[in-house]
Amino acid sequence: MKEFDFIRAIQPANLRQSHVIKGIGDDAAIVRTPYHDSILTVDTMVENIHFSRKTVDPFHIGWRALAANISDIAAMGGVPIAYLVSIVVSDNWKEHELIEIYNGMDELARKYNMDLIGGDTVIGQELSISITVMGTVAANGKRYRSHARDGDVVFVTGNLGGSACGLHVLLQDTGNSLTPFKDAIRKHQMPIPNVEFVERCASIKRMALNDISDGIASEANEIAKASNISIEIEPDKLPTHKDLEHFPSELQYQWKMSGGEDFELLGTVSLHEWHEIKKIANQIHVPITKIGSVHYHTERNGKAWIKDNNKLLRLEPTGYIHKTK
Amino acid sequence: MKEFDFIRAIQPANLRQSHVIKGIGDDAAIVRTPYHDSILTVDTMVENIHFSRKTVDPFHIGWRALAANISDIAAMGGVPIAYLVSIVVSDNWKEHELIEIYNGMDELARKYNMDLIGGDTVIGQELSISITVMGTVAANGKRYRSHARDGDVVFVTGNLGGSACGLHVLLQDTGNSLTPFKDAIRKHQMPIPNVEFVERCASIKRMALNDISDGIASEANEIAKASNISIEIEPDKLPTHKDLEHFPSELQYQWKMSGGEDFELLGTVSLHEWHEIKKIANQIHVPITKIGSVHYHTERNGKAWIKDNNKLLRLEPTGYIHKTK
Repeated sequence: MKEFDFIRAIQPANLRQSHVIKGIGDDAAIVRTPYHDSILTVDTMVENIHFSRKTVDPFHIGWRALAANISDIAAMGGVPIAYLVSIVVSDNWKEHELIEIYNGMDELARKYNMDLIGGDTVIGQELSISITVMGTVAANGKRYRSHARDGDVVFVTGNLGGSACGLHVLLQDTGNSLTPFKDAIRKHQMPIPNVEFVERCASIKRMALNDISDGIASEANEIAKASNISIEIEPDKLPTHKDLEHFPSELQYQWKMSGGEDFELLGTVSLHEWHEIKKIANQIHVPITKIGSVHYHTERNGKAWIKDNNKLLRLEPTGYIHKTK
Repeated sequence: MKEFDFIRAIQPANLRQSHVIKGIGDDAAIVRTPYHDSILTVDTMVENIHFSRKTVDPFHIGWRALAANISDIAAMGGVPIAYLVSIVVSDNWKEHELIEIYNGMDELARKYNMDLIGGDTVIGQELSISITVMGTVAANGKRYRSHARDGDVVFVTGNLGGSACGLHVLLQDTGNSLTPFKDAIRKHQMPIPNVEFVERCASIKRMALNDISDGIASEANEIAKASNISIEIEPDKLPTHKDLEHFPSELQYQWKMSGGEDFELLGTVSLHEWHEIKKIANQIHVPITKIGSVHYHTERNGKAWIKDNNKLLRLEPTGYIHKTK
């Protein structure tokens, strides 16, 4: 692979954002922050650990890696502006496959008018992709894990378990038609972060948000801990990806609770503002579901719980439920 | 290695910058940009490609990796604020060695009050470290490669060749004392980016800057190309690291011209402002040397040249000099 040809191939011809003052081509990039506050996040994906060529092609590797980072920006209340990509390339990857990785990122970036503003290409023994995303957020639009309060509604966008189900189907591939699972597969390969929903919620005064990268059990515990409240989830209310109906209920439960990588949002909001965000979600056709409530209870604070016939059972971050109170 | 213990060990106890609104601990970090414009850069270093345990210990790996990124921020005219570290860890690295890598970064970060605000720790087959640095720059303080103009003075900070000389000595290590080369070794292991000089030059109206990561021949060509001017360098004026005197003149020349990683600054400025920045450099004890001049000459624009007894010889980015005009 000729390094300069490759860099030329992945370099954007134009900038999309007026906020990007200097893109690729100097010592570093310069970005104007419309709201004065910048959001930064970085994630690294390593071949055979975070993805496998068996279940995702290069285009999807790029899409998913960028989606995971954009989802973090959304979960802080922000909108993404630009991204930088550092890639370690091993010699079992062909140039056109690497370009496809960048094409996958670019296809998603286009939805948000994001610019590729920098990066690095180095040689190594295994492919790894490190993406930094910069976004921006208004001073009163920040959505921290620590923002949950007693009495809040706990909600989730979209539905759960699709990504884990899609991965399962791709790994098990027995030669049968994958058509019945095409939505779940798409959810795994090309997840869509919830940027628009977060943007439209700019008028909401207070909201705790986490994106669902590690499964709802894990994210609920993180909010409970950061806000020092208890989160009670009603398991029957969890919205389930439709393709899960083909599988036994234990698998369904596991995928919904701890499958992860759905990149939906788990949030809490006051009852008053819950009616507001339901309206907003309806307007942009984002499904949103009330799945539980927030309580202040000194013995239960800092943890997530499952409501089971008026009993509260401890929900571990892993998705495991203690069968006694 | 227990992942959570490791993350706890590298997590900063306090924030240094009032600009950092949210550090590690949520979906992403939030940084307020004092000058409204953010600078972003990322670099990845892979074991046995960018560094070897033979010549740098873990502390220096961290220091150098961060220094290279800070140097890019300085070369844009900015000051660094915060950094994110994504590390791919292989199992031949012990936890205390990995912590030393972060200690090396932290020791350098402390000089600039920079905060570690995020990152990622993943497992892989080889160690690689990807650092993203965010800085800030005033609207009129940007220093692009494209800012050189006909008649400018070409200057360099500090001296050249030290890092390459230090690396050479460490690689050749014959068991003799390394004391005569300790400054060059330090320059290789613990380079200091020129942030203070750039900050003090805030009042300078126009300046082209590149940091010397790939050797002065390469950087001079980059400025010439971006500004569409010709850069003429007088080779006798290049400031030489003192430890180079122990080596033959061919090696000295090679290290000065294309050794790289000195992380000094190559710049151009009007003659009028040259007197200003000389004063500034003197005040903060940063050596600064005029090494050539900028010319507009349609046949020579876009390239760097060596002045040799009134003849101009083409200086390739690699440091190679064409012996005929």
